[in-house]
Amino acid sequence: MDRPLAPFHPPTRLLMGPGPSNLHPRVREALAAPLLGHMDPLVLGLLTDVQGLLRDAFGTENLLTLAVSGTGSAGIEACLAGLIEPGDRVVVEVHGFFGGRLGEMAARAGGAVTKVEAPWGRAADLEALRRAAREVKPRVIAVVHAETSTGVAQPLAEVAEIARDVEADLLVDCVTSLGGMPLHADRLGLAAAASCSQKCLGSPPGLAPMTMSPGAAARLAARTHPVPFYLDLPLIARYWGGDHAYHHTLPVNLVYALREGLRLAAEEGESERHRRHARHGAALAAGLEELGLEILAAPADRLPMLTAVRIPAGVDDAAVRRRLLEEFHIEIGGGLGELKGRVWRIGLMGETSRMNHVILLLAALGRVLERSPDAIGQAIDAAGAVADTQAVGAR
Amino acid sequence: MDRPLAPFHPPTRLLMGPGPSNLHPRVREALAAPLLGHMDPLVLGLLTDVQGLLRDAFGTENLLTLAVSGTGSAGIEACLAGLIEPGDRVVVEVHGFFGGRLGEMAARAGGAVTKVEAPWGRAADLEALRRAAREVKPRVIAVVHAETSTGVAQPLAEVAEIARDVEADLLVDCVTSLGGMPLHADRLGLAAAASCSQKCLGSPPGLAPMTMSPGAAARLAARTHPVPFYLDLPLIARYWGGDHAYHHTLPVNLVYALREGLRLAAEEGESERHRRHARHGAALAAGLEELGLEILAAPADRLPMLTAVRIPAGVDDAAVRRRLLEEFHIEIGGGLGELKGRVWRIGLMGETSRMNHVILLLAALGRVLERSPDAIGQAIDAAGAVADTQAVGAR
Repeated sequence: MDRPLAPFHPPTRLLMGPGPSNLHPRVREALAAPLLGHMDPLVLGLLTDVQGLLRDAFGTENLLTLAVSGTGSAGIEACLAGLIEPGDRVVVEVHGFFGGRLGEMAARAGGAVTKVEAPWGRAADLEALRRAAREVKPRVIAVVHAETSTGVAQPLAEVAEIARDVEADLLVDCVTSLGGMPLHADRLGLAAAASCSQKCLGSPPGLAPMTMSPGAAARLAARTHPVPFYLDLPLIARYWGGDHAYHHTLPVNLVYALREGLRLAAEEGESERHRRHARHGAALAAGLEELGLEILAAPADRLPMLTAVRIPAGVDDAAVRRRLLEEFHIEIGGGLGELKGRVWRIGLMGETSRMNHVILLLAALGRVLERSPDAIGQAIDAAGAVADTQAVGAR
Repeated sequence: MDRPLAPFHPPTRLLMGPGPSNLHPRVREALAAPLLGHMDPLVLGLLTDVQGLLRDAFGTENLLTLAVSGTGSAGIEACLAGLIEPGDRVVVEVHGFFGGRLGEMAARAGGAVTKVEAPWGRAADLEALRRAAREVKPRVIAVVHAETSTGVAQPLAEVAEIARDVEADLLVDCVTSLGGMPLHADRLGLAAAASCSQKCLGSPPGLAPMTMSPGAAARLAARTHPVPFYLDLPLIARYWGGDHAYHHTLPVNLVYALREGLRLAAEEGESERHRRHARHGAALAAGLEELGLEILAAPADRLPMLTAVRIPAGVDDAAVRRRLLEEFHIEIGGGLGELKGRVWRIGLMGETSRMNHVILLLAALGRVLERSPDAIGQAIDAAGAVADTQAVGAR
């Protein structure tokens, strides 16, 4: 470098994009706790804690439950690469950017991928999925639970039934859903599910919680074609829960923070946490509609933690996001893939899912879009009314 | 979980194992700074800073210089998987655990691997390597710069000459060396080098700095066989330094900390930092020998930041390490692979490489091994004498 760099002191921003979300002070404190080595008995004890907390979050008793040392994508790819041997048939349901990514990863793992597509902004076409599953007889079916590019929720019960029907392993991308809406991996009979440490789990990005059923784990152990070393789940599992044989140097600070984030979620209680996300998601949607904005997903398909809203004609996407960031210190997300420039993505995940944040966003966005004070007041009122009707146990 | 978990408050330990090393207070502070989103213009600016600082650390002007969002192993595997197409011939030099791992990763990437082995505790057999290179005509030659399992340094100039001679891409594992001893990727003509954020760079584990020459990067872009999505360097590079297209959610807190660790290293100055590591490594070796312990590597082959010392006959490996940890809050490492139970590995990396830590380790280990007060005093004196002779610019 030609010149010495100044220290970096980030401003405090309200993170209302598609993730990461804001960190609870306890999570930030945990992150900066004194570093211990990855073979320290105290750290090995933490791994057991985190595995237990993750089992609760995933709704599973799977022994193979841990956090991969990478972001959500690393966890998804570790599961997909593990379940797919080259040439295996894979059916991937795609109705957004992240469904497409599942297909990309499955193909790179050597899978013969059949995509079942639905329009971006809708949930899966279950009849088309059933037809494809019966026709292809895939080894693996992969779906996204919460499609972060469109704000669409994918109900899993029928997908799980389709997978059972054709005896395929069902892999679910729970990157955006885990911690924000119900998931019962065991009741659904999922072969694998993977998520991320940030978003609704509320810790920093960099770890990928995952779980795999005993049956799927056994097939993983019996693979003939190697997976990438870094994503080799049996080796990672041996470090986490076996004889703790060294595989890689755990990002210990991130594990401190993940444990604290999961502790906060456990203290809040799973049902209350899901209700909180649902309440504030519904309030935001009501407020946005009152501002005259159109939400991409139909009401029945909407995610509680991520709302994709159409950018009104004639409005400058980047300019609006820049003003929100610079004047109000609020981050929202732009569109991905075919929705780039066409939607904004507003997240209410983890600590960010608070009524005050809904109000702030409506006020700030209303002002940037030059809505009248009256319209802004009405939007806030609409959001508040919806929140009130769902306010059992609110805080 | 059956019961709520208590908060975790780790003790402060002196990390003298093979990594991680202790964090400077400024690095811990940076780690816990307010989180920003991975598409925030301020974060995108940080990426440019980190790329510049990493180029200085690697001794390169390579455009493709960044940190992979995983631990050191992820960075090495991203480089190897990128440089090797299935069936490519690869020569891997192995004289320890991490050389073996290079071979493992190269084979998983589809490489036809020829291993050139030397005894654990020695450097490469250069004549054997030259012979193998000429015979095999490999696409890639891979070596470890600082073999963390044995404490052996591998001089790179002759290896680079061998690679040039057969027109192979030379990939160097710098996980333990970077920041602690000289490396000049461009002068050596390295195709790729990869390291980790922890150890001698002194930030938390979880990121993998890497660099790749323009020629190697061009071949990577022209590959026909896909690499794993998460380790796809052209996609990662596009996010870091291109049009910032989304690839994965950057572990932003770790990038804050890496930047601060690199700033500290730049303030200290590269030469002084390398001298500091050399001085304290030599002091430790002198003290250990004065305690009657035998160092695995010959003097000329020793690493400054990692010393493997033979466990004396009749001494209980685990009991000694446990007493150091519990009574003195000092972590040292055990042996890996064929050296398990046969050596201890004592690290002096980054912030841990301080004379006071050398003294503490000698005193604590001397007491655990029941050396006399006089012997311990002599060991400290021997270490001090060596440090004094190298004390130009010491602090």
